[in-house]
Amino acid sequence: MAGNSFGKVFRITTFGESHGAAIGVIIDGCPPNIALDLDFIQYELDKRKPGQSKITTQRKESDTCQILSGVFEGKTTGTPIAIVIPNEDQKSKDYDHNKDTFRPSHADYTYQHKYGIRDHRGGGRSSARETAARVAAGAIAKLALKKVGIEVVAHVSSVGTIDAPHIDFTSVEDFEALRESNIVRCADPSTAKEMINLIDQIRKEGDTIGGKVSCIVKNCPVGLGEPVFDKLHADLGKAMLSINAVHGFDYGSGFDGSTMRGSEHNDIFEKNHLGDVITRTNFSGGIQGGISNGMDINFRVAFKPVATIMTNQQTVNKDGDAAEIKGKGRHDPCVVPRAVAIVEAMAALVIIDHYLRNNLYQ
Amino acid sequence: MAGNSFGKVFRITTFGESHGAAIGVIIDGCPPNIALDLDFIQYELDKRKPGQSKITTQRKESDTCQILSGVFEGKTTGTPIAIVIPNEDQKSKDYDHNKDTFRPSHADYTYQHKYGIRDHRGGGRSSARETAARVAAGAIAKLALKKVGIEVVAHVSSVGTIDAPHIDFTSVEDFEALRESNIVRCADPSTAKEMINLIDQIRKEGDTIGGKVSCIVKNCPVGLGEPVFDKLHADLGKAMLSINAVHGFDYGSGFDGSTMRGSEHNDIFEKNHLGDVITRTNFSGGIQGGISNGMDINFRVAFKPVATIMTNQQTVNKDGDAAEIKGKGRHDPCVVPRAVAIVEAMAALVIIDHYLRNNLYQ
Amino acid sequence: MAGNSFGKVFRITTFGESHGAAIGVIIDGCPPNIALDLDFIQYELDKRKPGQSKITTQRKESDTCQILSGVFEGKTTGTPIAIVIPNEDQKSKDYDHNKDTFRPSHADYTYQHKYGIRDHRGGGRSSARETAARVAAGAIAKLALKKVGIEVVAHVSSVGTIDAPHIDFTSVEDFEALRESNIVRCADPSTAKEMINLIDQIRKEGDTIGGKVSCIVKNCPVGLGEPVFDKLHADLGKAMLSINAVHGFDYGSGFDGSTMRGSEHNDIFEKNHLGDVITRTNFSGGIQGGISNGMDINFRVAFKPVATIMTNQQTVNKDGDAAEIKGKGRHDPCVVPRAVAIVEAMAALVIIDHYLRNNLYQ
Amino acid sequence: MAGNSFGKVFRITTFGESHGAAIGVIIDGCPPNIALDLDFIQYELDKRKPGQSKITTQRKESDTCQILSGVFEGKTTGTPIAIVIPNEDQKSKDYDHNKDTFRPSHADYTYQHKYGIRDHRGGGRSSARETAARVAAGAIAKLALKKVGIEVVAHVSSVGTIDAPHIDFTSVEDFEALRESNIVRCADPSTAKEMINLIDQIRKEGDTIGGKVSCIVKNCPVGLGEPVFDKLHADLGKAMLSINAVHGFDYGSGFDGSTMRGSEHNDIFEKNHLGDVITRTNFSGGIQGGISNGMDINFRVAFKPVATIMTNQQTVNKDGDAAEIKGKGRHDPCVVPRAVAIVEAMAALVIIDHYLRNNLYQ
Repeated sequence: MAGNSFGKVFRITTFGESHGAAIGVIIDGCPPNIALDLDFIQYELDKRKPGQSKITTQRKESDTCQILSGVFEGKTTGTPIAIVIPNEDQKSKDYDHNKDTFRPSHADYTYQHKYGIRDHRGGGRSSARETAARVAAGAIAKLALKKVGIEVVAHVSSVGTIDAPHIDFTSVEDFEALRESNIVRCADPSTAKEMINLIDQIRKEGDTIGGKVSCIVKNCPVGLGEPVFDKLHADLGKAMLSINAVHGFDYGSGFDGSTMRGSEHNDIFEKNHLGDVITRTNFSGGIQGGISNGMDINFRVAFKPVATIMTNQQTVNKDGDAAEIKGKGRHDPCVVPRAVAIVEAMAALVIIDHYLRNNLYQ
Repeated sequence: MAGNSFGKVFRITTFGESHGAAIGVIIDGCPPNIALDLDFIQYELDKRKPGQSKITTQRKESDTCQILSGVFEGKTTGTPIAIVIPNEDQKSKDYDHNKDTFRPSHADYTYQHKYGIRDHRGGGRSSARETAARVAAGAIAKLALKKVGIEVVAHVSSVGTIDAPHIDFTSVEDFEALRESNIVRCADPSTAKEMINLIDQIRKEGDTIGGKVSCIVKNCPVGLGEPVFDKLHADLGKAMLSINAVHGFDYGSGFDGSTMRGSEHNDIFEKNHLGDVITRTNFSGGIQGGISNGMDINFRVAFKPVATIMTNQQTVNKDGDAAEIKGKGRHDPCVVPRAVAIVEAMAALVIIDHYLRNNLYQ
Repeated sequence: MAGNSFGKVFRITTFGESHGAAIGVIIDGCPPNIALDLDFIQYELDKRKPGQSKITTQRKESDTCQILSGVFEGKTTGTPIAIVIPNEDQKSKDYDHNKDTFRPSHADYTYQHKYGIRDHRGGGRSSARETAARVAAGAIAKLALKKVGIEVVAHVSSVGTIDAPHIDFTSVEDFEALRESNIVRCADPSTAKEMINLIDQIRKEGDTIGGKVSCIVKNCPVGLGEPVFDKLHADLGKAMLSINAVHGFDYGSGFDGSTMRGSEHNDIFEKNHLGDVITRTNFSGGIQGGISNGMDINFRVAFKPVATIMTNQQTVNKDGDAAEIKGKGRHDPCVVPRAVAIVEAMAALVIIDHYLRNNLYQ
Repeated sequence: MAGNSFGKVFRITTFGESHGAAIGVIIDGCPPNIALDLDFIQYELDKRKPGQSKITTQRKESDTCQILSGVFEGKTTGTPIAIVIPNEDQKSKDYDHNKDTFRPSHADYTYQHKYGIRDHRGGGRSSARETAARVAAGAIAKLALKKVGIEVVAHVSSVGTIDAPHIDFTSVEDFEALRESNIVRCADPSTAKEMINLIDQIRKEGDTIGGKVSCIVKNCPVGLGEPVFDKLHADLGKAMLSINAVHGFDYGSGFDGSTMRGSEHNDIFEKNHLGDVITRTNFSGGIQGGISNGMDINFRVAFKPVATIMTNQQTVNKDGDAAEIKGKGRHDPCVVPRAVAIVEAMAALVIIDHYLRNNLYQ
């Protein structure tokens, strides 16, 4: 029983291998009458696409998407939206060494054993290329959320041990402008400079480095999230952990919260000057009992370093015998600058899905 | 669209409020012909039950379960297994203050707004009492896993800022014996002592403290986990984040992995003396590309401090007006000693579910 | 992957064997704030219960249900509703002959081969006793539908070759009064008399007879049903075919429609005196393109004769050797009088499920 | 919550409108290592395609499918298979009259009310063109079934009131040869002649006619079907009822069974000369208790007459005012000859899905 679908009401199913004809996605359950802004969808895809700066892979993919169905005269119709993104800049030869030998910390070994067959070119289905389809679907989720005033925004909050300071903001637009002012996509420009230098140096060494992405959901209404298993943060966690290279997720006080006392951690309710109930602090990360409470939702996603490095490594081949694998191909020294778009997409998909699920109670 | 079910093939649905007649669970999809060891199920429930030591809540519930269906002459039949656990030691009066006032960092506020009605006695459906049903189901999942040699074991790895050292072990039995040698359920007895002292002191202050549980899955075969969304660690993450009070999850190198370089993080494949392919290190946490690779699976779960403290707190009432809430009732100063059983149960449920899902490829 | 759940939003999971401790159901996704009229639930169960007249089985079960969760101060809370119906009048000894021998046209043989184990007492899980749980859940579905004005009503439209005439009605209450005026539950009293005589004669002969139930859904709004697979009539069909002994389903013009011409079959749209769009005829059975069109929904369900007869039959035993099975036990000579309640329950479950699913578009 | 997916393990999601860029399907859960015979897939599509004879619509679509993913070196890989079928012979102008006026017994009215928007060209999503995607997916299901020896075959068993006699056969190949010997796809050539004459006459009158398709599944092992809701015949019924224009489904003794007595209807078990347990008769249609018993599975599907007729009809427009709609476009006088391929496809999809679900018990 395969697992290529995500969401219950706004449900996506992705397909495609990195070196096949195309990748893509079907969205089933998108509400009708949403104006599809194609420029916006492309803008989102461009944030993820390869070759965008010196600190990303130099592969070139335009990632232009074709919408085959579900749209009539520029608006969604409530029927399935099929999106296809053709593959372009494939150098399948680069992966011949990969056919019978398993790259360390990649999915070659596990795919081979699970299915008894695999498309070894470029990682096939396990390639992060699949996430372009998620970003296209996430862009439509964002358009649906915009109609009801909900915004999702992320940035790179750490690269290696370089951490960005906590940034408070009210205007998502301003925050995005700061983030897009630099190629590492950190909303604190001076930290961004340090991060870029670090990635650039690591790239030159043929090595890679991990990092973290932090994400905020603004204007989420009270009530999203379904007890007891489909808690809002549980679905956000699953969504983030399903992204390639992610090794950790926390929200609100997160791992740090495990060292705190109840007396300092509890978020006191109070009425603000507009008469709205808010909490004085937000260690709950905008979610209580698995249900959004109207405060900003915040969470963090930890990415391991990219497994493909430019140095030779020991490994085994299909027969389990010792072998050596050469570092080659065009790869990212650090995924987080491009992962910002993916984190936002998956968050938008979770929020619209729960938004629609919660409609049932109203 | 509610969310009280978990799992696709070994699927559980829980029900019940803390001060209603009973809580319970239906398991649909348990394989037939598994001998149901009722003592083992009770043993698992006893690890979670209240009143077991001075550092847990003093409520008394025997948590005796009744199996209403799906078992014939001591064996599962492949039909739904219904388990009911009657509620016993309810002091509903203790929650009168909770009726119109929202306890800080509890789910009172969000449930009230989502549903427009709530059973306020003892937290109702949002009470951690619901997790007893998960432990009963998890015990049956463990029995199913035992038949195929897979073991799941967890312990308390931190309380507040007290961290247990990393413990390597091969015998799950020995590890459990160490863990059960102390009431905080840490497998390192000297750290356990410190933890118990800390919790006891915090309890006397009427306060609470957070902590972490670490879990290992041993002898998991290669191949569990379904790309791309139902990755094994994504489902483990969702399972853990669905437990009350959990604020974070990571696996393998986890959050620390985000600070590492690829050259140090990559797990080199090699053949061991038995001729099996293993990895020299295990930063992947036993999972690559979302699929188990045959190494130990390991992950960590971060719990926030319990929200109910024994001091008075400011809050708002149903009308949003300022109110005060008194600290009373019988509560845990720290949940992690009892949470060990819940983490193991949810992990067992994820593993058996993916084990059965993977059968399809064989 | 088991199949004991039905519905996507208003989702039920049933459990229990006929000679176990109890049968029951969990409803997950019932909207909050519905007043639970327990007398009404019992009234529905009484229509299905055994021993109600001379033409039904003489087993005695009070079918009293206990609600364990999901209800607070008489109203649903939006959390799972667990209902348990204890088994009472079991004569398990009556089924000893059934242990190693397969009754013709029962599920003994297929359960044994599928699971390798079965509770042979009274048919176990394959017993129609399971449908009592459906009727309890269906009663709550009906209460939810009543809040929005939708009514579901069925009656026995044929027994053997005795067919009731077509009955047009506007008042569901009047129709039900006619139906309940006789023990066969046919709304045409003179046909009912014939049916009762036939069943009584067949019962005396130790034989059984099939029949049909016809059902109407009144006041269903336009828009229920989800293209392309979850068409409203496709889900109604599946629901009906999942009832024990059902061998056929059709709706609107049904099987007869396959002999008609388009020019006579097309339902012409027109505006009625209230200004509403209606169709002049209703060969579409209230559903077009899988979506309700606002007209009465009508369908028919065909039941085969009960397999248990009071005469001896040839068969095989577990080893495949020839054996004889004796006719004994207490069984229905014809299921349709009791099946009316089950058909209504399953129809109500489909309609409330689609009603809630459709909310998402509003 | 939309409904464009079918199946739990071998799961398809279709997309596309009749006059959009393309239609298509994603299959998620196809087992790996199945050789994809593209000629066979095209052969199946050709049975359904328009313009194949004088008694079908004269539209011309080559229905050539492109496989975008999930296949490597001619074999399935266990990853999602995406299939796209471009639309070709569109005369969207033919549907201008359809924009603001509702065609009787079509889905125009219900789609407009459900979604508030619709692609009116050629019926959009409600067009039977969507079924080409099902046939492509069904062809792959058939290839998967062939590997385990299961065969699915259907033919036209009635047109209007012309019924084919019951045909017993052992060789599916021979049966298909007879069926393909005539353009109406009835395996009894002399009845076929009558049917063709009737359809041709009705076509000349600008009218349409209904009919029935009968289907057999051969060599289905014992054990497929999941109690209590996902009974094998319940899923077959839903599958068939989800096909455009279907108004009825029955299996085994079907509607006729409702007039029979238990003593004549019961299928006596016996051992055949090979030592296999069989039933002497097959009123059960190969399914008992919702689970296949190893005998041939047989069922029937009733199609209403096509709604588009070549004469003018009264109707209403968007405002509910009286209007007239002209008969034009290129349409089938009778759908059953082309529907044979769709019935087989949906049956194959149900059987492979349950075959894989049942693997879990083995």
